[in-house]
Amino acid sequence: MEQFQLTDKLIKKIADLILAKNNSKLKKLVNDVHFADMADIINLLNENQGVYLIKLFDSEKTSEILTELDENIREKILEILSDKEIADQIEELDSDDAADILAELSDKRKEEVISEISDDNLAGDLIELLSYKEDSAGGLMAKELVKANENWTILKCLSEIKKQGENVTRVHSIYVVDDKERLIGRLSLKDLIIAPAKNKIKDIYIPKVDSVNVLEDGEEVAKIMSKYDLEAIPVVDDQKHLVGRITIDDIVDFIKEEAEEDYLIAAGVQGDVEADDSILELTRARLPWLFLGLVGGLGSVFILEGFQEFMNDPNYKALFFFTPLIAAMAGNVGVQSSAIIVQGLANNVVKGSLLKRLIKELGLSLINGTILGILTVLFGVFINQPIELSLVISLSMLCVIVVAALIGTSIPIILQKRGIDPAIATGPFITTSNDIFGIFLFFYIAKIFLL
Amino acid sequence: MEQFQLTDKLIKKIADLILAKNNSKLKKLVNDVHFADMADIINLLNENQGVYLIKLFDSEKTSEILTELDENIREKILEILSDKEIADQIEELDSDDAADILAELSDKRKEEVISEISDDNLAGDLIELLSYKEDSAGGLMAKELVKANENWTILKCLSEIKKQGENVTRVHSIYVVDDKERLIGRLSLKDLIIAPAKNKIKDIYIPKVDSVNVLEDGEEVAKIMSKYDLEAIPVVDDQKHLVGRITIDDIVDFIKEEAEEDYLIAAGVQGDVEADDSILELTRARLPWLFLGLVGGLGSVFILEGFQEFMNDPNYKALFFFTPLIAAMAGNVGVQSSAIIVQGLANNVVKGSLLKRLIKELGLSLINGTILGILTVLFGVFINQPIELSLVISLSMLCVIVVAALIGTSIPIILQKRGIDPAIATGPFITTSNDIFGIFLFFYIAKIFLL
Repeated sequence: MEQFQLTDKLIKKIADLILAKNNSKLKKLVNDVHFADMADIINLLNENQGVYLIKLFDSEKTSEILTELDENIREKILEILSDKEIADQIEELDSDDAADILAELSDKRKEEVISEISDDNLAGDLIELLSYKEDSAGGLMAKELVKANENWTILKCLSEIKKQGENVTRVHSIYVVDDKERLIGRLSLKDLIIAPAKNKIKDIYIPKVDSVNVLEDGEEVAKIMSKYDLEAIPVVDDQKHLVGRITIDDIVDFIKEEAEEDYLIAAGVQGDVEADDSILELTRARLPWLFLGLVGGLGSVFILEGFQEFMNDPNYKALFFFTPLIAAMAGNVGVQSSAIIVQGLANNVVKGSLLKRLIKELGLSLINGTILGILTVLFGVFINQPIELSLVISLSMLCVIVVAALIGTSIPIILQKRGIDPAIATGPFITTSNDIFGIFLFFYIAKIFLL
Repeated sequence: MEQFQLTDKLIKKIADLILAKNNSKLKKLVNDVHFADMADIINLLNENQGVYLIKLFDSEKTSEILTELDENIREKILEILSDKEIADQIEELDSDDAADILAELSDKRKEEVISEISDDNLAGDLIELLSYKEDSAGGLMAKELVKANENWTILKCLSEIKKQGENVTRVHSIYVVDDKERLIGRLSLKDLIIAPAKNKIKDIYIPKVDSVNVLEDGEEVAKIMSKYDLEAIPVVDDQKHLVGRITIDDIVDFIKEEAEEDYLIAAGVQGDVEADDSILELTRARLPWLFLGLVGGLGSVFILEGFQEFMNDPNYKALFFFTPLIAAMAGNVGVQSSAIIVQGLANNVVKGSLLKRLIKELGLSLINGTILGILTVLFGVFINQPIELSLVISLSMLCVIVVAALIGTSIPIILQKRGIDPAIATGPFITTSNDIFGIFLFFYIAKIFLL
């Protein structure tokens, strides 16, 4: 595939053409550009230039661009567009994308835009979709789907599909419902093509159909769809009425967003922020975890103060030079252990009892700790450090590594058992607690042997 | 959806039935279990019990289970199965899944299994697929697809699809080729149903079709498919011959694996390991980053030694109590900054020059650093610390936070520009370098003001 190349030169050219209001050249230049690439272009322009480009084409082409824009840019552009203009755009979209855009508007603006929508069915669908939580099955689903009544013939079904199919971008499955609109099965387009035209749907449909409840958590839906390799899943209410459909492309976005969130949490960044968010938003996302680090760091001030007698001994004051090493080891080992467990919990590969898991981690950290300990003793020889000091430092470090690994392993498992997302365990939380604990343990063990 | 519940009781019951060789009860118990759930069951049994279960059913049902098993368990089960038995299993699979399983065997075993495959076409396809790199488009694609010659009529095409479609689990698009088998367009099943039967494919196909080269990097394929919301993409060779097809479900797995790898790298765990891998594999994944931390920690021993004169001053020796705090701040801020940039680079939202980015980060870290600095001064008042010491500590910490943020921001951007995966910047690499640098800066500034 010849991928579209987004260059500074192209952006400059477009900006110049907009300035010159040279619409014919502008249209020629970007007419064949894919909407996802158009979004990339508009993300790099200012909001007025973006609106200019959007108004240049009809809403059939531009509505998809809106869905792909950066949230920050979209917000600015929606502010400039009129209620009617937004309504025109979202009428072209699938209901799930339309609802996502509406959800970003203020409550007042939402109502105004919906009142401008000419298609009453769509307006009703959007009001329904907006009533669900963003990350629930209802918040992810679209209302567009192709369904067949079990009593139809194949022939009737084919002609109905031609009608219904016009509004549905991709027909994955045809859902089969009974007279009360309850989901009872499914049918693939392939089955329909292969079956004799006079048969009834009743005779050929597959009664086994996976579905999710409209209130189900999005993460659960993603798990089900990726576990069972589903490309679309119907959504039902408590009475099994078919209310919508979730497709895999929405789940792909969802999986990516979840992975990004876990990644950022592990790095001590809270919530759903991006590099181009405002300084204020980024501060709000970062300060809480730094504050936690501050509290932990100030806590270790007290611990080190408690061991200051080592400073009076010219042989042992060197212990203080090792605090950053010990803190780093405790933090790194803890984060490693917890990240592996968090990942394992997400993939359901953490099996067996906590005890068995801890024994494995014990073995692992003894190996790592011993190797690193030996290297530390060699380092001590190299810098002419008293050998008993080196041995004590290595032994303490070994203990710190073992304890850090056990803490890092236990916390996510305990959190998961209590119904708390174990992902929050990885990152500053583990680092901070392991720092404090590690430093205390290090000096405590040193004190036992040396003082 | 009533989700399958995997309980200890069920596993126990299955193990008992296997022991009693009670095949009829066993079949009744698990006959309707989805293959992905069967894989979960077998993951919890030992390999002989797993093989027993697999041999209980015919390969049509069990082959899909094999693809879903944990790699470690599958390896053990494949060792027990004969070449012919493995060949029977993979003949039931789509060619991409079959090739993935073959790829896990030794070269000798691979050949032996392939020689047992009765379908020569499939054997040829598998040999071809095995020749591509695992993470390339060729390594991800399947040979199964539905294609139509541009000169066929709709009627001929429909009957061909019925034939071809039997081997293809999901028909997304029908690819249109010319007489030389070169990809020239596509057709959706929907279009085919709607079009008049006497038209030729030539008249109705869509000439615009995205495709990827067979040698393209998998990450790039994932980006293209998720950016353009594609559910399947055809794969072509350099002469544009249609050679395969990649579907979105394979890409979902790929995206998840990539996200997991980045997550583990950020936590200082190298490569593709899981919680249930052997202790040796886990040690190998974790020790290198711990070694890096050790080198950094030993480096900071020298730095602290260089500033030991502070220890002789009863007022200033407290600076040493703050080293874990400074190291934690430098590490946390650096990881936050780099994680946000790494994420932004992956999503193409990091725009504009490095300089602009650094100015933003400067503002952000000044805000965070000032707030944390004020809190540190208040802490100093609270513990009756000399005020000039508190002020110097806060000022130094502020400098450390600013520098750490700038380092965390620059490194991923510089790595990306040099064609190195910026993800490796986040984690121990940043933590370690920022630890050393932060501690040095802290004491250096303190020295300027206090000594």
